[in-house]
Amino acid sequence: MNTRTLLGRIVEAASGIVRSPAQRRATRLAALLRTLISQRGEASGAALARRALALYRGLDESGRLVFFQHLARDFSPEPEAVLAAATAYHGDPSAANLATLERVTEPPRQEAFRRMNMAPGGTAALLEMRAAVLSLCAKHPALAVIDSDLAHLFGSWFNRGFLRLQRIDWRTSAAILEKLISYEAVHEIRGFPDLKRRLERDRRCFAFFHPVLEDEPLIFVEVAFVNEIPSAVAPILALESAVGDPRRARCAVFYSITSTQPGLRGISFGNFLIKQVAEDLHAELPNLKIFVTLSPVPGLRAWARAELARPRRDPELEALRAQLAAAVEAGDVPPPALRNAFEGLAAWYLSREFRDPVARFHLGNGARLERINWEADTSTKGMAQSFGTMVNYVYDLGDVEKNHEEYFTRRRVVCSSAVERLAQLIEPLLLDGRLLEG
Amino acid sequence: MNTRTLLGRIVEAASGIVRSPAQRRATRLAALLRTLISQRGEASGAALARRALALYRGLDESGRLVFFQHLARDFSPEPEAVLAAATAYHGDPSAANLATLERVTEPPRQEAFRRMNMAPGGTAALLEMRAAVLSLCAKHPALAVIDSDLAHLFGSWFNRGFLRLQRIDWRTSAAILEKLISYEAVHEIRGFPDLKRRLERDRRCFAFFHPVLEDEPLIFVEVAFVNEIPSAVAPILALESAVGDPRRARCAVFYSITSTQPGLRGISFGNFLIKQVAEDLHAELPNLKIFVTLSPVPGLRAWARAELARPRRDPELEALRAQLAAAVEAGDVPPPALRNAFEGLAAWYLSREFRDPVARFHLGNGARLERINWEADTSTKGMAQSFGTMVNYVYDLGDVEKNHEEYFTRRRVVCSSAVERLAQLIEPLLLDGRLLEG
Amino acid sequence: MNTRTLLGRIVEAASGIVRSPAQRRATRLAALLRTLISQRGEASGAALARRALALYRGLDESGRLVFFQHLARDFSPEPEAVLAAATAYHGDPSAANLATLERVTEPPRQEAFRRMNMAPGGTAALLEMRAAVLSLCAKHPALAVIDSDLAHLFGSWFNRGFLRLQRIDWRTSAAILEKLISYEAVHEIRGFPDLKRRLERDRRCFAFFHPVLEDEPLIFVEVAFVNEIPSAVAPILALESAVGDPRRARCAVFYSITSTQPGLRGISFGNFLIKQVAEDLHAELPNLKIFVTLSPVPGLRAWARAELARPRRDPELEALRAQLAAAVEAGDVPPPALRNAFEGLAAWYLSREFRDPVARFHLGNGARLERINWEADTSTKGMAQSFGTMVNYVYDLGDVEKNHEEYFTRRRVVCSSAVERLAQLIEPLLLDGRLLEG
Amino acid sequence: MNTRTLLGRIVEAASGIVRSPAQRRATRLAALLRTLISQRGEASGAALARRALALYRGLDESGRLVFFQHLARDFSPEPEAVLAAATAYHGDPSAANLATLERVTEPPRQEAFRRMNMAPGGTAALLEMRAAVLSLCAKHPALAVIDSDLAHLFGSWFNRGFLRLQRIDWRTSAAILEKLISYEAVHEIRGFPDLKRRLERDRRCFAFFHPVLEDEPLIFVEVAFVNEIPSAVAPILALESAVGDPRRARCAVFYSITSTQPGLRGISFGNFLIKQVAEDLHAELPNLKIFVTLSPVPGLRAWARAELARPRRDPELEALRAQLAAAVEAGDVPPPALRNAFEGLAAWYLSREFRDPVARFHLGNGARLERINWEADTSTKGMAQSFGTMVNYVYDLGDVEKNHEEYFTRRRVVCSSAVERLAQLIEPLLLDGRLLEG
Repeated sequence: MNTRTLLGRIVEAASGIVRSPAQRRATRLAALLRTLISQRGEASGAALARRALALYRGLDESGRLVFFQHLARDFSPEPEAVLAAATAYHGDPSAANLATLERVTEPPRQEAFRRMNMAPGGTAALLEMRAAVLSLCAKHPALAVIDSDLAHLFGSWFNRGFLRLQRIDWRTSAAILEKLISYEAVHEIRGFPDLKRRLERDRRCFAFFHPVLEDEPLIFVEVAFVNEIPSAVAPILALESAVGDPRRARCAVFYSITSTQPGLRGISFGNFLIKQVAEDLHAELPNLKIFVTLSPVPGLRAWARAELARPRRDPELEALRAQLAAAVEAGDVPPPALRNAFEGLAAWYLSREFRDPVARFHLGNGARLERINWEADTSTKGMAQSFGTMVNYVYDLGDVEKNHEEYFTRRRVVCSSAVERLAQLIEPLLLDGRLLEG
Repeated sequence: MNTRTLLGRIVEAASGIVRSPAQRRATRLAALLRTLISQRGEASGAALARRALALYRGLDESGRLVFFQHLARDFSPEPEAVLAAATAYHGDPSAANLATLERVTEPPRQEAFRRMNMAPGGTAALLEMRAAVLSLCAKHPALAVIDSDLAHLFGSWFNRGFLRLQRIDWRTSAAILEKLISYEAVHEIRGFPDLKRRLERDRRCFAFFHPVLEDEPLIFVEVAFVNEIPSAVAPILALESAVGDPRRARCAVFYSITSTQPGLRGISFGNFLIKQVAEDLHAELPNLKIFVTLSPVPGLRAWARAELARPRRDPELEALRAQLAAAVEAGDVPPPALRNAFEGLAAWYLSREFRDPVARFHLGNGARLERINWEADTSTKGMAQSFGTMVNYVYDLGDVEKNHEEYFTRRRVVCSSAVERLAQLIEPLLLDGRLLEG
Repeated sequence: MNTRTLLGRIVEAASGIVRSPAQRRATRLAALLRTLISQRGEASGAALARRALALYRGLDESGRLVFFQHLARDFSPEPEAVLAAATAYHGDPSAANLATLERVTEPPRQEAFRRMNMAPGGTAALLEMRAAVLSLCAKHPALAVIDSDLAHLFGSWFNRGFLRLQRIDWRTSAAILEKLISYEAVHEIRGFPDLKRRLERDRRCFAFFHPVLEDEPLIFVEVAFVNEIPSAVAPILALESAVGDPRRARCAVFYSITSTQPGLRGISFGNFLIKQVAEDLHAELPNLKIFVTLSPVPGLRAWARAELARPRRDPELEALRAQLAAAVEAGDVPPPALRNAFEGLAAWYLSREFRDPVARFHLGNGARLERINWEADTSTKGMAQSFGTMVNYVYDLGDVEKNHEEYFTRRRVVCSSAVERLAQLIEPLLLDGRLLEG
Repeated sequence: MNTRTLLGRIVEAASGIVRSPAQRRATRLAALLRTLISQRGEASGAALARRALALYRGLDESGRLVFFQHLARDFSPEPEAVLAAATAYHGDPSAANLATLERVTEPPRQEAFRRMNMAPGGTAALLEMRAAVLSLCAKHPALAVIDSDLAHLFGSWFNRGFLRLQRIDWRTSAAILEKLISYEAVHEIRGFPDLKRRLERDRRCFAFFHPVLEDEPLIFVEVAFVNEIPSAVAPILALESAVGDPRRARCAVFYSITSTQPGLRGISFGNFLIKQVAEDLHAELPNLKIFVTLSPVPGLRAWARAELARPRRDPELEALRAQLAAAVEAGDVPPPALRNAFEGLAAWYLSREFRDPVARFHLGNGARLERINWEADTSTKGMAQSFGTMVNYVYDLGDVEKNHEEYFTRRRVVCSSAVERLAQLIEPLLLDGRLLEG
């Protein structure tokens, strides 16, 4: 044990705080990061970064927490220096004053992270670090500053310009395919044979990769080539279905899109991925005329239950409401007689409420809400989320910019006339409910 | 011509300022960047980025200046917002206040650059943009803020963790080899046959590449395998020399290191490159015991001329000074009788003056100043810079951290006893000169 | 229908033989091959070859038989021409006479196959063709000439100099891994997770590939790194076993080797594969001191049953024989009391009988018979072949040439002293049996 | 020195023949090949093959000759065995008799070569061996048997099905580009900058590679994209010409095709290469409508001189002949007045004489003789071969098979009406000459 460590122990003992070896390692790591961002770190950066990474990997859960607390507390900008620089910049917004301002307001954490990134495996470790921080933020809100710094860095590092779009097929490395199987978030992949069907010639799979995370798909999309806009997911997932000819299909269906990295939360690639894939497929297979999703409506049931909770004034509407509310509670696919009403509810929810996350993603990307599909996904999950309803969003590459504009500047969802009719059908029921509140 | 453009022309005409099409394009580009960093840019980012890049590429020199002036003036942080956020953070350094501070102090330029980077070829275009900005900064100092923002971004994007070390040999793409020929800054490469000799098995060449700049070496180093620390560069560069056996060499000489990208000025890879190459060669060829440079001393003659300009008090020293000054002016290799004195001057210059850029680079990396070599480079350039003197810096991987520490914290150059003796030899002459000043 | 085809039909009808469309296609294919090997084939070779291949692929089983019969009958050397050329060569073995001899004795089939090989997919199709021919040879012995010609060609085309040794690991294409799973002939692989364990860092898998059969391993070997020569296969195959450190293992075990192509029967790569892998592993992991197999003894039970069928003269030996014979019939692992006797039988069988195919392969390659392992493979197959016995053959790279020489020129199996002792132990029983016969 | 070698020396001394060490090495190598093709070679093949190759590489010129003489004399089929097998096969052409026949008629050399090929670098060494044999054949005709065996093997090994078509551009390895420069046989490439122009986007270069000869193009073709069928080569070779847009060109000109390997003499790839490249370019650039060569006429001048040597009966024709003969001797481009007559001679020579090697190649491939170009190549070589004349052969992919048929079965050159007219124009002159002979 060297003098320094010994001294540390004495101080510690004197202070009455007993610390575990992992906690002491956390403190040592924080000190090492200090050195790393000093001038010494410039010359011996790679070596120090390797040591820092090794220390970090050796931390257990409690050690990590101690380390994060150091990071949040001791690596933030100095308030005095910030205020002085801001005052000077306010007085004279010169290049020199701006330079000073930038220097003192950037949290030293960011430089520490950039230096850690120099060690082999650094980027992957930082991604995991952010995932760890995120999982602790609820209980330790002060750690949010670390999350924010990492998010800022990752936004820059994982810029779309640095990502490679790669086709995934049966000739892809098993190491990558295995990850697809474990990551898939929309329609579970049940092992390699299931995946193989999804990679046949009438299917496609594409992923974004970052050059330093070689075997790690960041986001991937699964596409099926079919003749008509699909109204149910089962035929697409069926293992034993005949393999079609991609040069005869009219329609490319994006039936599953999965982000894989919790450490990249909030850094969105989906928009780029869908559009790039649509463009590339269009160039490769000119027979493809329609690019469309088959998407879940995760918030529909919850919203409908809440919406249908309150009685209506109008007796007829009230009777309908009661029927619908009962059907929602029943849990099964609602009876055929109520199908139109439920489709109307879905149309209204998606076109007027702006709260479904999947809808927000596609409509915000400039897609058009095309069709409500009844009994489209009768899996347990599909029933629980939306009593089996799924929807199609159409990506018409010539219109996405205009649609996007409508969505954001005029707050209007572009949808097909069929969907619009369904929404208007159910309007009285919903407005009646609203009036009561008002 | 659409309404908007027409309107712009009218406003312009009214203001009495006549602008060229390129200047108007510059203004249009600035406006497009505004859109690009708005929410609309998020959905249509890739398409808008492509348009922005195309517009930028279409600018001529005057258009670029106009565009840069927009960038410098209109994409800086708001002084009011900065001061308010700084005051709040000073009052309560909470996570929320820090988040606001970060948001309002980051120049919107940076986001604009990140978005432009999404287009194919974006990174290369931004590198060229910084080179263009740098060449204008002297005349237009206000553009320094753009340089500073790009430097900050590039420091993050070209993090060593994202670079790939790649060996360059005769099987490398001609497109890359051609670049080495045109970039080489230390010892000119006279066409492919010259380069071929530098890639034989007793030579090595390594470069760092960034994944999105495929055929673009960012920095490269040339290495020769020899038996003894070399004292002259001509034998290494000789085209007709016999090719040696790399498994018998004791000594790896770094005889040329070139940074290729003006757009990456100030973002240093040389330190990483030399150490990584030394480590890798050491692992591959255990017979290599010495890792050493053969380096120019670019500032020696200019320094010596200035230093020898003032007469000395001591008559003997004054006689020496006059002889040395005459020899410096003569321009040839100084006469043999003065060799020791000149070597002493070089030793002093390098070990006491801390101003030679090459010396600062290697000593700052933790190398040791090993030997002064007389008549080592008698090319025109070599004579002009240092009357033919070159030096060896030794990279002893076990010592670099310690040496670096000495250099930065104690401001002491670690050098061999021979070099130290030479410096002490000439000390009286130099101190006498100093005393006069004092 | 064109004139030619019509004419063919008329001729056919007149002859009273009714032929199916597939049979007619077979005849057309044979005619096309005639053209292909004519001068016309030289200019339009690629196009004709493609047509030939397409025709061949369209043949059903009966069509294939007709085609093969054409090939066997009509594409053999002309007996008259052969005799004339041989007589001339016998009279004057000049270069010119030799050239004529070569030309007229090479079956035109071979040129036809070489031309077919020019079409994309040709090599794979010819491999399949030989597999089809082989499966028909028993019933149609005349087809043996086709087999022989293809074997000759393949011996040349699949020369070891043209094969690439490639490591297979978890990053290998799923398309290739899937083939390993389906091909594995020694110890069944039960899906991707089972295979994954066999590709961890304490395991290795290598295969030979031919450049034009990209995803097709021709032969592969599975290796396990362990500390001692293994005496049972279950620990190696266990899915849940801890993964060891390859740099600490002393022993590389070749526990499975599988040839995949029925079309390459008789063209042996195993010898090259094992030695190359042993050399490469030795260079990569100097800690590996022993290269050894864990091999089945497929013919042991059948041989023992036959050997033990006849009574012995000596009453003691006869008693033993009866016990052993009963145990063989019982089918289970024999009782412990008989273990030594059974091990002796195995030792004798392998060291004196020269008939076990696995033993012939390894001993012919120059391996040493090292150890008999009791209860080493209690799978159904292992019990049926050898009442659970397996053996180790050691590849001592310094000795293989000498051992090989012993085996072939002196007909002596090199074995460890332990194995030799076991063989001698059981000698009286076996010699007594022989004497009776004599 | 071991006993065997000593004994050899004694025998040698006794025989009075003194042999050099290289000659003794040649004899040792022949003995080693004997072992290599024995059963022992099967087990230790790779090791023995390596030794054989090393021995071969150590041979000097005289050693190689001795070795080749061994190969020619001692590795041929046994005449007795051949005659016996042929007689048996003649008596009964059974599968078994055929198998025996094949075995005893194949020269053991071929097996020796196949075994040598197993060593690393074997294929390249055998190619060089054939080149060496070919250069000795004129003086040592007995070596022709080796050439013939190697040609047979290479015909099988370098089957088009095993070759890879690869595009060569400026991103290709310098090692390969350097070979193009040194191999180019038609229009000399003067260093890397010249080659670079030939690889710009309005040019293409393709080569066939064999998988085991990685950096060795076997044959390559250079293509230029232009708007009209070119009538001169200088504009295509001009270094400073503007780079055109490949998507606007109508015409792909094959202006140079070079076979690189003397060891592959007689094994033709050019036909495959041109047709494959034409097909691929057609698919990539549908704007390309014409695929045409710009070809030298190497034998024209020599043929014309001979043809014009004899006086004509008809006085007018005789006057013309004398003028033409004088112009041929003069060596310059003939005077304009004679242009038509000379073009007629070229047309006749190419369409009626069947002896120009370049014409035979393209017409045999099914090309059409399109145009005679006056003053098309005024380089020294162009003048010497054909007083500057070049021709265009058109590859019309739809017609090549038909044209080829005409050429080989009806002995008719397919040519444009313009060329045919030129040939008819000059007919009287040539027929008059012929009548005299008759």
